[in-house]
Amino acid sequence: MPRVSTDQLAARRQHILDGARRCFAAHGYEGATVRRLEQSTGLSRGAIFHYFRDKDALFLALAEQDARRMADVVAEQGLVQVMRDLLETAHKADPASADDESDRSWLGTRLEVSRRLRTDPDFRERWEAHSAALTSATRERLERQAAAGALRDDVPVPVLASFLELVLEGLVSHLAMGLPAEDLDGVLDVVEQGVRRKRT
Amino acid sequence: MPRVSTDQLAARRQHILDGARRCFAAHGYEGATVRRLEQSTGLSRGAIFHYFRDKDALFLALAEQDARRMADVVAEQGLVQVMRDLLETAHKADPASADDESDRSWLGTRLEVSRRLRTDPDFRERWEAHSAALTSATRERLERQAAAGALRDDVPVPVLASFLELVLEGLVSHLAMGLPAEDLDGVLDVVEQGVRRKRT
Repeated sequence: MPRVSTDQLAARRQHILDGARRCFAAHGYEGATVRRLEQSTGLSRGAIFHYFRDKDALFLALAEQDARRMADVVAEQGLVQVMRDLLETAHKADPASADDESDRSWLGTRLEVSRRLRTDPDFRERWEAHSAALTSATRERLERQAAAGALRDDVPVPVLASFLELVLEGLVSHLAMGLPAEDLDGVLDVVEQGVRRKRT
Repeated sequence: MPRVSTDQLAARRQHILDGARRCFAAHGYEGATVRRLEQSTGLSRGAIFHYFRDKDALFLALAEQDARRMADVVAEQGLVQVMRDLLETAHKADPASADDESDRSWLGTRLEVSRRLRTDPDFRERWEAHSAALTSATRERLERQAAAGALRDDVPVPVLASFLELVLEGLVSHLAMGLPAEDLDGVLDVVEQGVRRKRT
Protein backbone atom coordinates (compact mmCIF):
# COMPACT_ATOMS: atom_id res chain seq x y z
CA MET A 1 0.00 0.00 0.00
CA PRO A 2 1.45 3.43 -0.92
CA ARG A 3 2.12 5.85 1.94
CA VAL A 4 -0.51 8.54 2.24
CA SER A 5 -0.56 11.69 4.33
CA THR A 6 -2.80 12.27 7.35
CA ASP A 7 -4.77 14.79 5.26
CA GLN A 8 -5.39 12.20 2.60
CA LEU A 9 -6.54 9.68 5.20
CA ALA A 10 -8.94 12.22 6.71
CA ALA A 11 -10.27 13.14 3.26
CA ARG A 12 -10.82 9.47 2.39
CA ARG A 13 -12.59 8.89 5.70
CA GLN A 14 -14.85 11.89 5.06
CA HIS A 15 -15.55 10.72 1.51
CA ILE A 16 -16.75 7.38 2.91
CA LEU A 17 -18.92 9.09 5.53
CA ASP A 18 -20.56 11.35 2.92
CA GLY A 19 -21.36 8.40 0.68
CA ALA A 20 -22.64 6.32 3.60
CA ARG A 21 -24.91 9.18 4.73
CA ARG A 22 -26.50 9.33 1.28
CA CYS A 23 -26.85 5.55 1.27
CA PHE A 24 -28.53 5.37 4.72
CA ALA A 25 -30.81 8.28 3.73
CA ALA A 26 -31.85 6.60 0.48
CA HIS A 27 -32.28 3.04 1.71
CA GLY A 28 -32.70 3.21 5.50
CA TYR A 29 -30.51 1.40 7.99
CA GLU A 30 -31.51 -2.13 7.02
CA GLY A 31 -31.54 -1.35 3.30
CA ALA A 32 -28.01 0.06 3.29
CA THR A 33 -26.33 -3.17 2.23
CA VAL A 34 -22.58 -3.52 1.75
CA ARG A 35 -23.13 -3.57 -2.02
CA ARG A 36 -25.07 -0.29 -1.86
CA LEU A 37 -22.43 1.25 0.41
CA GLU A 38 -19.85 0.33 -2.24
CA GLN A 39 -21.96 2.00 -4.93
CA SER A 40 -22.61 5.20 -2.95
CA THR A 41 -18.95 5.62 -1.93
CA GLY A 42 -17.43 4.33 -5.18
CA LEU A 43 -15.07 2.21 -3.05
CA SER A 44 -14.67 -1.49 -2.39
CA ARG A 45 -15.87 -3.08 0.83
CA GLY A 46 -12.23 -3.68 1.70
CA ALA A 47 -11.48 0.05 1.48
CA ILE A 48 -14.62 1.01 3.43
CA PHE A 49 -14.05 -1.44 6.27
CA HIS A 50 -10.39 -0.51 6.47
CA TYR A 51 -11.65 2.80 7.94
CA PHE A 52 -14.77 1.57 9.77
CA ARG A 53 -15.10 -1.76 11.52
CA ASP A 54 -18.63 -2.49 10.35
CA LYS A 55 -21.93 -0.88 9.32
CA ASP A 56 -22.73 0.02 12.95
CA ALA A 57 -19.43 1.86 13.22
CA LEU A 58 -20.22 3.85 10.06
CA PHE A 59 -23.69 4.71 11.31
CA LEU A 60 -22.44 5.75 14.75
CA ALA A 61 -19.66 7.85 13.20
CA LEU A 62 -22.33 9.77 11.26
CA ALA A 63 -24.37 10.26 14.44
CA GLU A 64 -21.21 11.51 16.15
CA GLN A 65 -20.54 13.93 13.29
CA ASP A 66 -24.08 15.33 13.67
CA ALA A 67 -23.63 15.65 17.42
CA ARG A 68 -20.32 17.51 17.01
CA ARG A 69 -21.72 19.93 14.43
CA MET A 70 -24.70 20.65 16.65
CA ALA A 71 -22.41 20.97 19.70
CA ASP A 72 -20.44 23.71 17.89
CA VAL A 73 -23.65 25.69 17.33
CA VAL A 74 -24.78 25.00 20.91
CA ALA A 75 -21.54 26.36 22.38
CA GLU A 76 -22.00 29.70 20.57
CA GLN A 77 -25.76 30.07 20.27
CA GLY A 78 -27.54 27.38 22.28
CA LEU A 79 -29.67 24.31 21.52
CA VAL A 80 -32.70 26.38 20.52
CA GLN A 81 -30.60 27.80 17.67
CA VAL A 82 -29.83 24.23 16.54
CA MET A 83 -33.58 23.67 16.37
CA ARG A 84 -34.12 26.94 14.51
CA ASP A 85 -31.49 25.88 11.97
CA LEU A 86 -33.18 22.48 11.47
CA LEU A 87 -36.50 24.21 11.03
CA GLU A 88 -35.13 26.75 8.56
CA THR A 89 -33.68 23.91 6.48
CA ALA A 90 -37.12 22.28 6.52
CA HIS A 91 -38.87 25.52 5.51
CA LYS A 92 -36.48 26.08 2.63
CA ALA A 93 -36.49 22.45 1.52
CA ASP A 94 -37.33 22.09 -2.12
CA PRO A 95 -39.39 18.90 -2.62
CA ALA A 96 -37.60 18.41 -5.93
CA SER A 97 -34.12 18.68 -4.40
CA ALA A 98 -32.37 15.36 -3.85
CA ASP A 99 -30.08 16.95 -1.25
CA ASP A 100 -32.96 18.32 0.82
CA GLU A 101 -34.78 14.99 0.65
CA SER A 102 -31.52 13.36 1.73
CA ASP A 103 -31.36 15.60 4.84
CA ARG A 104 -34.90 14.63 5.84
CA SER A 105 -34.26 10.99 5.10
CA TRP A 106 -31.18 10.91 7.24
CA LEU A 107 -33.21 12.29 10.17
CA GLY A 108 -35.66 9.47 9.53
CA THR A 109 -32.90 6.87 9.55
CA ARG A 110 -32.14 7.93 13.12
CA LEU A 111 -35.70 6.96 14.04
CA GLU A 112 -35.51 3.63 12.25
CA VAL A 113 -32.90 2.35 14.67
CA SER A 114 -35.24 2.89 17.65
CA ARG A 115 -35.99 -0.84 17.96
CA ARG A 116 -32.29 -1.62 17.91
CA LEU A 117 -31.55 1.09 20.51
CA ARG A 118 -34.24 -0.29 22.79
CA THR A 119 -33.36 -3.94 22.54
CA ASP A 120 -29.56 -3.87 22.15
CA PRO A 121 -27.92 -2.36 25.28
CA ASP A 122 -24.46 -2.42 23.69
CA PHE A 123 -25.63 -0.46 20.65
CA ARG A 124 -27.49 2.00 22.90
CA GLU A 125 -24.35 2.55 24.97
CA ARG A 126 -22.32 3.28 21.82
CA TRP A 127 -25.07 5.62 20.55
CA GLU A 128 -25.14 7.52 23.85
CA ALA A 129 -21.34 7.82 23.84
CA HIS A 130 -21.48 9.26 20.32
CA SER A 131 -24.15 11.80 21.35
CA ALA A 132 -22.24 12.85 24.45
CA ALA A 133 -20.65 15.88 22.75
CA LEU A 134 -24.06 17.45 22.26
CA THR A 135 -25.29 16.68 25.77
CA SER A 136 -22.23 18.15 27.45
CA ALA A 137 -22.19 21.23 25.17
CA THR A 138 -25.84 21.85 26.08
CA ARG A 139 -25.20 21.58 29.82
CA GLU A 140 -22.10 23.77 29.65
CA ARG A 141 -23.88 26.47 27.72
CA LEU A 142 -26.78 26.44 30.20
CA GLU A 143 -24.38 26.57 33.16
CA ARG A 144 -22.71 29.65 31.66
CA GLN A 145 -26.09 31.28 31.07
CA ALA A 146 -27.19 30.43 34.60
CA ALA A 147 -24.02 32.03 35.99
CA ALA A 148 -24.81 35.15 33.96
CA GLY A 149 -28.30 35.28 35.48
CA ALA A 150 -30.03 34.68 32.14
CA LEU A 151 -31.83 31.47 33.15
CA ARG A 152 -34.74 30.79 35.47
CA ASP A 153 -33.30 29.64 38.79
CA ASP A 154 -36.26 27.63 40.12
CA VAL A 155 -35.41 24.56 38.03
CA PRO A 156 -32.05 22.72 38.09
CA VAL A 157 -29.92 23.17 34.95
CA PRO A 158 -29.89 19.41 34.12
CA VAL A 159 -33.71 19.46 33.99
CA LEU A 160 -33.66 22.48 31.65
CA ALA A 161 -31.11 20.64 29.49
CA SER A 162 -33.34 17.54 29.38
CA PHE A 163 -36.30 19.75 28.45
CA LEU A 164 -34.45 21.21 25.47
CA GLU A 165 -33.19 17.80 24.39
CA LEU A 166 -36.71 16.33 24.57
CA VAL A 167 -38.04 19.11 22.33
CA LEU A 168 -35.16 18.47 19.90
CA GLU A 169 -36.16 14.77 19.77
CA GLY A 170 -39.73 15.83 19.02
CA LEU A 171 -38.59 18.19 16.28
CA VAL A 172 -36.39 15.54 14.63
CA SER A 173 -39.31 13.08 14.71
CA HIS A 174 -41.74 15.69 13.38
CA LEU A 175 -39.53 16.76 10.48
CA ALA A 176 -38.51 13.18 9.62
CA MET A 177 -42.20 12.33 9.26
CA GLY A 178 -42.74 15.29 6.94
CA LEU A 179 -45.48 16.77 9.17
CA PRO A 180 -46.45 20.47 8.76
CA ALA A 181 -43.87 22.84 10.26
CA GLU A 182 -45.45 26.28 9.76
CA ASP A 183 -46.40 26.77 13.43
CA LEU A 184 -43.06 25.71 14.81
CA ASP A 185 -41.18 29.02 14.81
CA GLY A 186 -43.63 30.28 17.41
CA VAL A 187 -43.30 27.00 19.30
CA LEU A 188 -39.52 27.47 19.55
CA ASP A 189 -40.12 30.95 21.00
CA VAL A 190 -42.23 29.30 23.74
CA VAL A 191 -39.44 26.76 24.32
CA GLU A 192 -36.81 29.48 24.62
CA GLN A 193 -38.94 31.52 27.03
CA GLY A 194 -39.44 28.33 29.06
CA VAL A 195 -35.79 28.29 30.14
CA ARG A 196 -35.21 32.05 30.45
CA ARG A 197 -35.19 34.03 33.66
CA LYS A 198 -38.43 35.82 33.01
CA ARG A 199 -40.99 35.95 30.29
CA THR A 200 -40.49 38.95 28.05
CA MET B 1 -72.01 -17.26 7.42
CA PRO B 2 -74.06 -17.38 10.67
CA ARG B 3 -75.63 -14.14 11.80
CA VAL B 4 -73.75 -12.46 14.60
CA SER B 5 -74.75 -9.56 16.82
CA THR B 6 -73.19 -6.09 16.67
CA ASP B 7 -71.52 -6.83 20.02
CA GLN B 8 -69.94 -9.96 18.62
CA LEU B 9 -68.69 -8.06 15.58
CA ALA B 10 -67.15 -5.37 17.81
CA ALA B 11 -65.55 -8.01 20.04
CA ARG B 12 -64.10 -9.81 17.02
CA ARG B 13 -62.77 -6.54 15.62
CA GLN B 14 -61.13 -5.70 18.96
CA HIS B 15 -59.65 -9.21 19.20
CA ILE B 16 -57.99 -8.69 15.82
CA LEU B 17 -56.68 -5.25 16.84
CA ASP B 18 -55.18 -6.62 20.08
CA GLY B 19 -53.42 -9.44 18.23
CA ALA B 20 -52.18 -7.08 15.51
CA ARG B 21 -50.80 -4.65 18.11
CA ARG B 22 -48.76 -7.47 19.69
CA CYS B 23 -47.60 -8.54 16.23
CA PHE B 24 -46.48 -5.02 15.15
CA ALA B 25 -44.77 -4.58 18.52
CA ALA B 26 -42.89 -7.87 18.24
CA HIS B 27 -41.88 -7.72 14.58
CA GLY B 28 -42.11 -4.07 13.51
CA TYR B 29 -44.22 -2.77 10.66
CA GLU B 30 -42.33 -4.55 7.87
CA GLY B 31 -41.90 -7.74 9.87
CA ALA B 32 -45.61 -8.11 10.62
CA THR B 33 -46.37 -10.43 7.71
CA VAL B 34 -49.83 -11.80 6.97
CA ARG B 35 -48.71 -15.19 8.31
CA ARG B 36 -47.57 -13.61 11.59
CA LEU B 37 -50.79 -11.61 11.84
CA GLU B 38 -52.67 -14.91 11.50
CA GLN B 39 -50.58 -16.44 14.28
CA SER B 40 -50.96 -13.51 16.68
CA THR B 41 -54.73 -13.21 16.17
CA GLY B 42 -55.41 -16.96 15.84
CA LEU B 43 -57.56 -16.16 12.78
CA SER B 44 -57.26 -16.75 9.06
CA ARG B 45 -56.25 -13.97 6.69
CA GLY B 46 -59.77 -14.18 5.26
CA ALA B 47 -61.26 -13.40 8.68
CA ILE B 48 -58.75 -10.60 9.39
CA PHE B 49 -59.19 -8.84 6.07
CA HIS B 50 -62.97 -9.18 6.31
CA TYR B 51 -62.68 -6.55 9.05
CA PHE B 52 -59.71 -4.52 7.78
CA ARG B 53 -58.94 -3.83 4.13
CA ASP B 54 -55.20 -4.38 4.41
CA LYS B 55 -52.21 -4.12 6.76
CA ASP B 56 -52.20 -0.33 6.48
CA ALA B 57 -55.83 -0.22 7.58
CA LEU B 58 -54.99 -2.37 10.64
CA PHE B 59 -52.04 -0.19 11.55
CA LEU B 60 -53.99 3.05 11.14
CA ALA B 61 -56.90 1.64 13.18
CA LEU B 62 -54.43 1.01 16.03
CA ALA B 63 -53.07 4.56 15.72
CA GLU B 64 -56.65 5.84 15.81
CA GLN B 65 -57.39 3.78 18.92
CA ASP B 66 -54.35 5.34 20.63
CA ALA B 67 -55.42 8.81 19.57
CA ARG B 68 -58.97 8.28 20.92
CA ARG B 69 -57.74 6.93 24.26
CA MET B 70 -55.38 9.88 24.63
CA ALA B 71 -58.12 12.29 23.53
CA ASP B 72 -60.34 11.02 26.38
CA VAL B 73 -57.58 11.80 28.90
CA VAL B 74 -56.90 15.17 27.22
CA ALA B 75 -60.56 16.23 27.49
CA GLU B 76 -60.55 15.67 31.26
CA GLN B 77 -56.97 16.32 32.29
CA GLY B 78 -54.99 17.77 29.38
CA LEU B 79 -52.15 16.59 27.14
CA VAL B 80 -49.51 16.96 29.86
CA GLN B 81 -51.41 14.28 31.82
CA VAL B 82 -51.20 11.98 28.79
CA MET B 83 -47.42 12.46 28.90
CA ARG B 84 -47.32 11.85 32.66
CA ASP B 85 -49.24 8.60 32.12
CA LEU B 86 -46.80 7.48 29.40
CA LEU B 87 -43.90 8.31 31.68
CA GLU B 88 -45.41 6.48 34.65
CA THR B 89 -45.88 3.39 32.51
CA ALA B 90 -42.21 3.65 31.51
CA HIS B 91 -41.06 4.07 35.14
CA LYS B 92 -43.06 1.06 36.26
CA ALA B 93 -42.11 -1.07 33.28
CA ASP B 94 -40.69 -4.40 34.33
CA PRO B 95 -37.94 -5.40 31.87
CA ALA B 96 -39.07 -9.02 32.29
CA SER B 97 -42.70 -8.24 31.47
CA ALA B 98 -43.70 -9.10 27.92
CA ASP B 99 -46.67 -6.70 28.13
CA ASP B 100 -44.50 -3.75 29.18
CA GLU B 101 -41.98 -4.51 26.42
CA SER B 102 -44.91 -4.72 24.03
CA ASP B 103 -46.04 -1.19 25.02
CA ARG B 104 -42.58 0.22 24.36
CA SER B 105 -42.25 -1.73 21.12
CA TRP B 106 -45.55 -0.44 19.84
CA LEU B 107 -44.34 3.15 20.43
CA GLY B 108 -41.27 2.22 18.42
CA THR B 109 -43.37 0.86 15.57
CA ARG B 110 -44.90 4.31 15.22
CA LEU B 111 -41.38 5.65 14.54
CA GLU B 112 -40.56 2.94 12.03
CA VAL B 113 -43.18 4.23 9.62
CA SER B 114 -41.50 7.66 9.46
CA ARG B 115 -40.01 6.97 6.03
CA ARG B 116 -43.41 5.87 4.75
CA LEU B 117 -45.10 8.95 6.26
CA ARG B 118 -42.58 11.22 4.60
CA THR B 119 -42.59 9.66 1.17
CA ASP B 120 -46.20 8.50 0.78
CA PRO B 121 -48.60 11.52 0.85
CA ASP B 122 -51.68 9.26 0.80
CA PHE B 123 -50.48 7.30 3.85
CA ARG B 124 -49.60 10.55 5.64
CA GLU B 125 -53.06 11.95 4.96
CA ARG B 126 -54.69 8.82 6.41
CA TRP B 127 -52.35 8.97 9.45
CA GLU B 128 -53.20 12.62 10.08
CA ALA B 129 -56.93 11.88 9.77
CA HIS B 130 -56.56 9.08 12.34
CA SER B 131 -54.71 11.41 14.74
CA ALA B 132 -57.26 14.18 14.35
CA ALA B 133 -59.18 13.17 17.49
CA LEU B 134 -56.15 13.96 19.64
CA THR B 135 -55.36 17.25 17.93
CA SER B 136 -58.90 18.57 18.25
CA ALA B 137 -59.23 17.39 21.88
CA THR B 138 -55.99 19.23 22.69
CA ARG B 139 -57.14 22.48 21.07
CA GLU B 140 -60.59 22.31 22.68
CA ARG B 141 -59.16 21.72 26.13
CA LEU B 142 -56.74 24.65 25.71
CA GLU B 143 -59.55 26.91 24.43
CA ARG B 144 -61.60 26.10 27.55
CA GLN B 145 -58.61 26.79 29.77
CA ALA B 146 -57.89 30.03 27.97
CA ALA B 147 -61.51 31.13 28.47
CA ALA B 148 -61.11 30.36 32.19
CA GLY B 149 -58.00 32.57 32.31
CA ALA B 150 -55.70 29.67 33.18
CA LEU B 151 -53.41 30.01 30.14
CA ARG B 152 -50.82 32.58 29.19
CA ASP B 153 -52.47 35.00 26.76
CA ASP B 154 -49.40 36.28 24.90
CA VAL B 155 -49.23 33.22 22.63
CA PRO B 156 -52.07 31.98 20.38
CA VAL B 157 -53.73 28.76 21.54
CA PRO B 158 -52.81 26.83 18.34
CA VAL B 159 -49.12 27.56 19.01
CA LEU B 160 -49.46 26.28 22.59
CA ALA B 161 -51.19 23.16 21.24
CA SER B 162 -48.34 22.61 18.75
CA PHE B 163 -45.83 23.07 21.56
CA LEU B 164 -47.47 20.34 23.66
CA GLU B 165 -47.77 18.01 20.66
CA LEU B 166 -44.10 18.50 19.79
CA VAL B 167 -43.07 17.57 23.32
CA LEU B 168 -45.33 14.48 23.12
CA GLU B 169 -43.53 13.46 19.90
CA GLY B 170 -40.20 13.85 21.68
CA LEU B 171 -41.40 11.78 24.62
CA VAL B 172 -42.67 8.97 22.40
CA SER B 173 -39.35 8.93 20.54
CA HIS B 174 -37.35 9.02 23.79
CA LEU B 175 -39.28 6.17 25.43
CA ALA B 176 -39.34 4.07 22.26
CA MET B 177 -35.54 4.28 22.17
CA GLY B 178 -35.31 3.15 25.79
CA LEU B 179 -33.35 6.26 26.82
CA PRO B 180 -33.15 7.25 30.54
CA ALA B 181 -36.39 8.77 31.82
CA GLU B 182 -35.57 9.72 35.43
CA ASP B 183 -35.30 13.47 34.77
CA LEU B 184 -38.49 13.69 32.80
CA ASP B 185 -41.04 14.29 35.58
CA GLY B 186 -39.35 17.63 36.23
CA VAL B 187 -39.25 18.30 32.49
CA LEU B 188 -43.01 17.85 32.24
CA ASP B 189 -43.43 20.39 35.07
CA VAL B 190 -41.45 22.88 32.93
CA VAL B 191 -43.68 22.04 29.97
CA GLU B 192 -46.87 22.57 31.98
CA GLN B 193 -45.62 25.89 33.36
CA GLY B 194 -44.77 26.92 29.80
CA VAL B 195 -48.43 27.12 28.83
CA ARG B 196 -49.86 28.42 32.10
CA ARG B 197 -50.81 31.99 32.87
CA LYS B 198 -47.99 32.62 35.26
CA ARG B 199 -45.10 30.72 36.71
CA THR B 200 -45.83 29.46 40.21
